[in-house]
Amino acid sequence: MRISELAEASGVSLPTLKYYLREGLLMPGVATARTRAEYDEAHLERLRLVRALVESGGLGIAAVRAVIAALDDPPASPHELLGVAHHALPPPVEPVAPSAEVVGWMRELGWESCLHSPLLGALTRAVADVRAAGVPLPDTAVRAYADAALRLAAVDVAIAARAPSPAAALHTVVVGTVMIDPLVAILRRLAQEVESSRVLGA
Amino acid sequence: MRISELAEASGVSLPTLKYYLREGLLMPGVATARTRAEYDEAHLERLRLVRALVESGGLGIAAVRAVIAALDDPPASPHELLGVAHHALPPPVEPVAPSAEVVGWMRELGWESCLHSPLLGALTRAVADVRAAGVPLPDTAVRAYADAALRLAAVDVAIAARAPSPAAALHTVVVGTVMIDPLVAILRRLAQEVESSRVLGA
Repeated sequence: MRISELAEASGVSLPTLKYYLREGLLMPGVATARTRAEYDEAHLERLRLVRALVESGGLGIAAVRAVIAALDDPPASPHELLGVAHHALPPPVEPVAPSAEVVGWMRELGWESCLHSPLLGALTRAVADVRAAGVPLPDTAVRAYADAALRLAAVDVAIAARAPSPAAALHTVVVGTVMIDPLVAILRRLAQEVESSRVLGA
Repeated sequence: MRISELAEASGVSLPTLKYYLREGLLMPGVATARTRAEYDEAHLERLRLVRALVESGGLGIAAVRAVIAALDDPPASPHELLGVAHHALPPPVEPVAPSAEVVGWMRELGWESCLHSPLLGALTRAVADVRAAGVPLPDTAVRAYADAALRLAAVDVAIAARAPSPAAALHTVVVGTVMIDPLVAILRRLAQEVESSRVLGA
């Protein structure tokens, strides 16, 4: 299809399409004449992904470009998938130097594989932010959140493990990591209502 | 203290302080002369909260104002706290009309208390977004995420239940609901690394 038809089929405006092409978020079409190129289903699929990452994932253009680059050149082993995904994605908060407290939690949890993760700096920052905002956060609470997070991650990994290829698994991990955050946030709020009415009564 | 001293003590610039005063995010000081007002520890505490909601919570000014309004006029019963919190806070994604699938999940989970929650529309949208981005999301996965979310919520409610007053509990719930989202997102990514190396092997 021509670029005008791609715009119509995707619901993305022509100027935005041209912006995505310039920024490398959308691969070029196949040139059929000096000023004409042909686009296909792969372009439509890429556009759905870019819109999802920008609009629902809230990612900036640079972060979307990093995700796309990882998808275009996926690693061969499933073991490396998460590392690529986590490096491509911006951390949920700006990291600081990891605190001794956070490192201690990883050891207590048996999460030694995370001891050198750049996410420890983000965790340190998030914990400091919660406490600075006046919410008490004892380390027993963090460990309980970590146990619940392990259950979330088990679902994530089960979904990724069913993917038919490494590229598909990486797609699932990268996109799912970003897109499932809001889903979890909403389920957590709904569960608060359930748990609050159970514990605090009507 | 004078407003210049409040700026220094809080690290918030004078123009930003004046903006917060105009927007009603910071309560006025006690006037001591026609052009002079006195600020105290309560103002510093409010500023820590506003900065946390804006910078780490990512809330817009209108959402911060709604949270502040709820904190300034807390409901008497703990039962109403979460409703106030959830109405003051913007949903993580723009809601649509709740789908029959999402309503069905609430019934299967025994979450009947959520059947009329405005969050069901946000959940419907989040699920559609995840699937549109090409991540397979069978309803068994959503139910497993919901089980994990219930464990997160149990920690949230336990923290709020220990608060010394309804106002303190509301503070904890509103601020904690927003500020703990990034903490959960980071723990989930770390847990993915743990779970991935357990399931997929090195």
